Amino acid sequence: MAGLRYGGDYNPEQWPEEVWQEDVALMREAAVNLVTVGVFSWSRLEPAPGEYDFGWLDRVLDLLDANDIQVNLATPTASPPPWFGLAHPDALTVTADGVRLTHGSRDTYCASAPPYRAAARRIATTLADRYGKHPALALWHVHNEYGTWCHCDHVATAFRTWLTHRHGTLTALNDAWTTSFWSQHYSDWSQITPPRKTQYLPNPAQALDFRRFLSDEMLACYREQRDILRPTGVPVTTNFVFGGWVPVDHRRWAEEVDLVAIDDYPSGNPEEGSAFAADLARSWARGRPWLLMEQAAGVRYSGGRMIPKPPGAMARHSLQHIARGSQGAMFFQWRASRGGTEQWHHGMVPHAGPNSRTFHEISALGRALAELPRHTPGIAAKVAILWDYEAWWAQQSPGLPAPDLDYLNSVRQAHRVLWRHGITPDFAHPSDDISPYEMILVPSLYLISAESAANLTGFVRAGGTLIVSYFSGLVDEHCRVHLGGHPGALRDLLGISVDEFCPLTEPVPLTMGLTGTIWTEHIRLTSADAFAAYPDRTPAITRNRHGAGTAWYLSTNLDDDGYAALLTAAGLPAAITPPGVEIVRHRDGTVYAINHTADTISGIAPEPLLPGGFAVFNDLCHRPAQT
Amino acid sequence: MAGLRYGGDYNPEQWPEEVWQEDVALMREAAVNLVTVGVFSWSRLEPAPGEYDFGWLDRVLDLLDANDIQVNLATPTASPPPWFGLAHPDALTVTADGVRLTHGSRDTYCASAPPYRAAARRIATTLADRYGKHPALALWHVHNEYGTWCHCDHVATAFRTWLTHRHGTLTALNDAWTTSFWSQHYSDWSQITPPRKTQYLPNPAQALDFRRFLSDEMLACYREQRDILRPTGVPVTTNFVFGGWVPVDHRRWAEEVDLVAIDDYPSGNPEEGSAFAADLARSWARGRPWLLMEQAAGVRYSGGRMIPKPPGAMARHSLQHIARGSQGAMFFQWRASRGGTEQWHHGMVPHAGPNSRTFHEISALGRALAELPRHTPGIAAKVAILWDYEAWWAQQSPGLPAPDLDYLNSVRQAHRVLWRHGITPDFAHPSDDISPYEMILVPSLYLISAESAANLTGFVRAGGTLIVSYFSGLVDEHCRVHLGGHPGALRDLLGISVDEFCPLTEPVPLTMGLTGTIWTEHIRLTSADAFAAYPDRTPAITRNRHGAGTAWYLSTNLDDDGYAALLTAAGLPAAITPPGVEIVRHRDGTVYAINHTADTISGIAPEPLLPGGFAVFNDLCHRPAQT
Amino acid sequence: MAGLRYGGDYNPEQWPEEVWQEDVALMREAAVNLVTVGVFSWSRLEPAPGEYDFGWLDRVLDLLDANDIQVNLATPTASPPPWFGLAHPDALTVTADGVRLTHGSRDTYCASAPPYRAAARRIATTLADRYGKHPALALWHVHNEYGTWCHCDHVATAFRTWLTHRHGTLTALNDAWTTSFWSQHYSDWSQITPPRKTQYLPNPAQALDFRRFLSDEMLACYREQRDILRPTGVPVTTNFVFGGWVPVDHRRWAEEVDLVAIDDYPSGNPEEGSAFAADLARSWARGRPWLLMEQAAGVRYSGGRMIPKPPGAMARHSLQHIARGSQGAMFFQWRASRGGTEQWHHGMVPHAGPNSRTFHEISALGRALAELPRHTPGIAAKVAILWDYEAWWAQQSPGLPAPDLDYLNSVRQAHRVLWRHGITPDFAHPSDDISPYEMILVPSLYLISAESAANLTGFVRAGGTLIVSYFSGLVDEHCRVHLGGHPGALRDLLGISVDEFCPLTEPVPLTMGLTGTIWTEHIRLTSADAFAAYPDRTPAITRNRHGAGTAWYLSTNLDDDGYAALLTAAGLPAAITPPGVEIVRHRDGTVYAINHTADTISGIAPEPLLPGGFAVFNDLCHRPAQT
Repeated sequence: MAGLRYGGDYNPEQWPEEVWQEDVALMREAAVNLVTVGVFSWSRLEPAPGEYDFGWLDRVLDLLDANDIQVNLATPTASPPPWFGLAHPDALTVTADGVRLTHGSRDTYCASAPPYRAAARRIATTLADRYGKHPALALWHVHNEYGTWCHCDHVATAFRTWLTHRHGTLTALNDAWTTSFWSQHYSDWSQITPPRKTQYLPNPAQALDFRRFLSDEMLACYREQRDILRPTGVPVTTNFVFGGWVPVDHRRWAEEVDLVAIDDYPSGNPEEGSAFAADLARSWARGRPWLLMEQAAGVRYSGGRMIPKPPGAMARHSLQHIARGSQGAMFFQWRASRGGTEQWHHGMVPHAGPNSRTFHEISALGRALAELPRHTPGIAAKVAILWDYEAWWAQQSPGLPAPDLDYLNSVRQAHRVLWRHGITPDFAHPSDDISPYEMILVPSLYLISAESAANLTGFVRAGGTLIVSYFSGLVDEHCRVHLGGHPGALRDLLGISVDEFCPLTEPVPLTMGLTGTIWTEHIRLTSADAFAAYPDRTPAITRNRHGAGTAWYLSTNLDDDGYAALLTAAGLPAAITPPGVEIVRHRDGTVYAINHTADTISGIAPEPLLPGGFAVFNDLCHRPAQT
Repeated sequence: MAGLRYGGDYNPEQWPEEVWQEDVALMREAAVNLVTVGVFSWSRLEPAPGEYDFGWLDRVLDLLDANDIQVNLATPTASPPPWFGLAHPDALTVTADGVRLTHGSRDTYCASAPPYRAAARRIATTLADRYGKHPALALWHVHNEYGTWCHCDHVATAFRTWLTHRHGTLTALNDAWTTSFWSQHYSDWSQITPPRKTQYLPNPAQALDFRRFLSDEMLACYREQRDILRPTGVPVTTNFVFGGWVPVDHRRWAEEVDLVAIDDYPSGNPEEGSAFAADLARSWARGRPWLLMEQAAGVRYSGGRMIPKPPGAMARHSLQHIARGSQGAMFFQWRASRGGTEQWHHGMVPHAGPNSRTFHEISALGRALAELPRHTPGIAAKVAILWDYEAWWAQQSPGLPAPDLDYLNSVRQAHRVLWRHGITPDFAHPSDDISPYEMILVPSLYLISAESAANLTGFVRAGGTLIVSYFSGLVDEHCRVHLGGHPGALRDLLGISVDEFCPLTEPVPLTMGLTGTIWTEHIRLTSADAFAAYPDRTPAITRNRHGAGTAWYLSTNLDDDGYAALLTAAGLPAAITPPGVEIVRHRDGTVYAINHTADTISGIAPEPLLPGGFAVFNDLCHRPAQT
Repeated sequence: MAGLRYGGDYNPEQWPEEVWQEDVALMREAAVNLVTVGVFSWSRLEPAPGEYDFGWLDRVLDLLDANDIQVNLATPTASPPPWFGLAHPDALTVTADGVRLTHGSRDTYCASAPPYRAAARRIATTLADRYGKHPALALWHVHNEYGTWCHCDHVATAFRTWLTHRHGTLTALNDAWTTSFWSQHYSDWSQITPPRKTQYLPNPAQALDFRRFLSDEMLACYREQRDILRPTGVPVTTNFVFGGWVPVDHRRWAEEVDLVAIDDYPSGNPEEGSAFAADLARSWARGRPWLLMEQAAGVRYSGGRMIPKPPGAMARHSLQHIARGSQGAMFFQWRASRGGTEQWHHGMVPHAGPNSRTFHEISALGRALAELPRHTPGIAAKVAILWDYEAWWAQQSPGLPAPDLDYLNSVRQAHRVLWRHGITPDFAHPSDDISPYEMILVPSLYLISAESAANLTGFVRAGGTLIVSYFSGLVDEHCRVHLGGHPGALRDLLGISVDEFCPLTEPVPLTMGLTGTIWTEHIRLTSADAFAAYPDRTPAITRNRHGAGTAWYLSTNLDDDGYAALLTAAGLPAAITPPGVEIVRHRDGTVYAINHTADTISGIAPEPLLPGGFAVFNDLCHRPAQT
């Protein structure tokens, strides 16, 4: 149990049984020790209502067990079989424009539909009963990538119930949603629906509450299954998938899983993307174990293209996660599918078979990781970036003052600049205890509640450095503007007041050699002073002493170098790693150094230990920690 | 009553009553004398069917009255409350593909649904009864921005009735719609539907008649309310909104309102856009009073961005309207909303409050306008541009020979070139009495009836100058091609015949140093001569003496300078104003001069009277008129 | 009967009868001898259910007969009248997202709906009875451009029946469709639906089978009518329309028509496009007669624009078809429609009337063609390009590794390069007898069955030259990957094995001065040798001796010159015609030479015989054949 997890999604039901023998032989060759089984197998486990076929799964688990490969057994509830929707058409997804979807892909179900919930509980119970004590079982994996929207009447009913808990009274809801605008005042709970297709733009507060509701509703689905599975004594999790369209608040869900698990399909620079995903997962896990449960074998996705990962990339990306506390590295999927929609998504064993670069790398990586211990001692981050799903969702409202305001871009820039500086930041929620940090970055956090604003104020007062970017702190938890000069929630803390925004279509030069894009604001200084200015000499970047700390405000968008210069001015230490080398330090002295360049970096690692060109220096391993 | 109207939409129902006191104090500071109340307040006035709550509105009107602020009281029928659609699902909008919309935005109703019509009459009657004699009441504002499409069965029924009035017999309809094409012949009125989603492209004549029907159907809605409100003795209007998607013929509606009122949210160059909107409104009003009822406070909209209006712009744009006969300048809205979809749309009092550039300008503008009298003596335009909604709608048909034919672009160019020349043109309908004009511009007027063509011919015969642009006069009022050489309706008048069009993807050089884009034609001269030619020496621009006048034809698209050169060649006087200075002359000698530049213009105005940098010279005011 | 067919779609029902007299006079002037009548006339023939009005059609056919113009009489089943859908709403098209379409365009029906089938049989029977012996009748034209999708319950039922015939057992279907992926296993036939709107991407095998089904279902519609019409003794056909969205396998349909007939609306270079369409039709006809039944009169379509055909183009394009065996040249349509959706689609008689360039050319062309005999002796092609609709459809699957893989582009390039070389290739199906050819081009043929692969292997073994382009031979007839190294179906034949693809966003230089775009592969040579290489020295183009022949593989996309160089290296003779001159040779010695340039080409034709600048040299005509 001390070693790292290594493996991937294994779908033996897609293959004749004679292939299984080759599978386990190759798994052993690659030092695979954990595979995820059964994710989309409902239609094979329960081919007709109440008729089960577990024989094949029995044989798979026994075969794996006989080969010392453990199992992450999934409940198959992410994709009900065709018979399910035909028996329960009211449990199929309905789009915002009223189209009831048909089976034929995956994820076609409604999380609020009682027949779906009952069927999900039933299959989970059956699996718990049958496999709860199987010697191969190491982990329960509930469902897959929760994130399905539905707008049907079941959802409407559940949404209303959820709203009564959230708002208490209709009066409170009408106030929170500002329903006096456009004649949307509700005089009865029954008048409230999900945000279905309507004549023009929807109410942003309703849209935000609907996302919160969907997150909680799917969490209830998860909890139901978890509570069925937990009595087996095996830990339970589900894999988090990241995306702007996913109505799931993973930070809140993290409290409900025994092991935070993520899927990572990075966009943009894959190295920074991996670090970003791993830092998010690590932050959600709050020092507890977590696991990279899916990453792509062999290829990455970019602009609709499947681009081969260069030699060593699978190892380097896996290590980025492990360095941040992942208990292993898992892939989607073991063997590339022969047919089906994702037949070109590659596998640890590609279509070409084991005699392929991909499998050779997979195999070498597995054997190398087998030499490493699991390691979760934690990282003592001094810098945090504020991350809040609700703020992200609120920033997807219609009717914002500019089309290129993008919370994720701002967050990714903040993380990227720190990553290039060799700093491993935490992601903190605005309501978290942030007193341990020295510096907090607030990249375009549109929504901040009064309570969170007070939290940030306390942080600065106690000596912290806060760096707030444009389009932050404008609305409260109900998408209502904090009145008075902007940014209302942080105005006093920042010592400024803004009465006008000016979106840009062309860059604008600032003093200090900086350049602003996307956005500018007309700042009036109340107690802050100007650090950089626009061509009309009005302030562009301000700083305000508050208590023992300083609150900076950046009223425009900078490029990475400009943002880095701002952080440096605010006290961030200069970069401490050679370019392309990623350093992750742990409290216990362990240092992971990952060389993303093609060169041998002297002074960091005398020689690469693993195919990806990385080294681990650990006191426990009696190797000297280095900087 | 002699002064200008100044104010905006006032939505006190969005605010606690303690804010109202500040509102009226600020209104007085800004010399506001008219506010539009109640536009989207149905759900607050009638929170449940038949249950009314007028207390708040009573208090608002009394408060305004006590502060000498008059009220433009709206009927709230543009946005029924949530309960309405639930009680009458058949009165909710249905899209062309059959989706019945849900409340949750605004404008979700069907103008043909009897329950909607009854509910609208009921609330209008209730308001008339309660407030018809209120001392603050100055104007009734019916609904808001009529322009909603619906394709439901109520609409189908009403459409059929309308068609029987328009066409009389099925035979006439089949002929008008050319239903022999693609087997669309109707053998019974019941077979006719709105243009719902069908397999491929729709029938253009059906689509055009459907827009005409929608315009008439919504006009019937308006008339019902107007006839309920008129007995109060207070004038009645509704605000016209401009857009290619709006199925409303404002020229015809103008005859039904006591005061033409428009909303103006200009795109492109905002100064030219304001002049364009004001000239349209003035032309629709035909010498009667009219009013700019909405313009954006503080910002303009461009490419999804809300761009601050530069200092003085609100004043200059307001004056452009007033110079053309608007009885005042109104804004959307008084106080920027705290929540709701349009929370970022700015207000006369922005989120930052009265201590803001926007409110300072609003306040200065109101006080300055209070010094000016209302002025509607009229402008004696010598030049008219033909404007016809039906031709615009017809040019939105599928299957035209090129994708970049754009009526509005052509009209805007004609207007823009005149505006830069210091000429204030009328917009005339092709069937209007056009004998007062010296020059008529016909920019890409696809649809011209035989009667209108005769009207234009009479104009030229009597000595007028007609300048017709490409893609004009091709189809009749039923979208049927005028046969023979193109442009069939104007062929003899122009002295040419065209048998081939050639859309362009690249510019083509003409003689006279001109350049053609988008479109060319193969012209055969019958009685015209060539003014400019294509590289193959065929005519590009022609002129034809006809009776005492001249008819020009431009068979391609020119840039602004080229079009201006053509107008000059056709007899338009050279530009008479300094660049950036807009001059509007009235019959009574009043001259409005608006300086859109940042410079002081000598010779126009010795000093700016108002923040926007404009001056009014008026004999009545004993100031000399200038050119 | 010996002469060529000349004419077009004639829609007299759109015109008053007085126009008909001018029509036939002009037809005689233009030597028109065949017109297509009745294509969209159902609503005029049967204005109400069971009520017929044949008077007008009687008069039309008699008038044509009296003027020696023969008739291609259409059944009007492509566009049921408005009354039909109202009487049988279950026979209207349903989209994938469940919208039932409304009449108002054309083609709004469901091919699987029993009421539609019955109505279609009834009108066909009525026409056969009434006109089967009419002296003007020369050809029956069933329907128009079959190609309509529907997803309704009638379709679901028919699809299931079709699937039982195709797959036999559910087990076989589950295996073929790889339903073990994403829990799509079917346990009962009733669970299978058309690929309706679902949550995410659909199953590619299901989508492919659905296209096959639609092709067969519409073929059944055609056969029903054909079998009603054939007893009249007049040949029966239907016009094939070409497009990626058309679910019709014209190669298979060609066996069911008495005369292959196509519509040709070329995109891209219109000369190459015409040659491409004509070579496809000729190949589908397999030596039997065929007919160009529609081409655009006067204009071509490009980017939404209707561009005039330059002088001579109608003649040259017509001759390209005739040179390849078309029995004539027909246009859409005789007289440009006055109204309706396609009123701008031009006609042989345009809106401007007969005094127009278009009609002058039409008339001259007709008189010139009257001098030519029909000619179907055949072309003995040495080179074939593989063409398979199923492979095209399969390549439209979601989830491919790159977005710019485009089968049609690859095929068009192969054809274009041959055409420029003066070579007239056949299009062969992978399962055809290909032994007569010397060289076979396989442009990006994604789907190849094992049987077809064996066929290609036999071809090479016997001495043939095979040139396979990237992204070929990857999946079988059920869209399942041929396992092992790619391209699985052809791996041994090509002597290579590929385990990784790398889509490109930038061009990559190859050796031999070539440049690759779109795509590259990582090739391992097994028995082939490298002909050209990538910058990393891995093979880019390979050749493998196999038996008496050679199999080439091109693993990237080349430009036309590069592809031509490859073909030359593989043994294609150098270009043998002057640039711009198209040569088509027949077994009997006839040579058609078509001069697409504006110059007189010496040595080819002493003088142009026809307006389009082409010449026919034919032994039968006692003119010397030339090269």
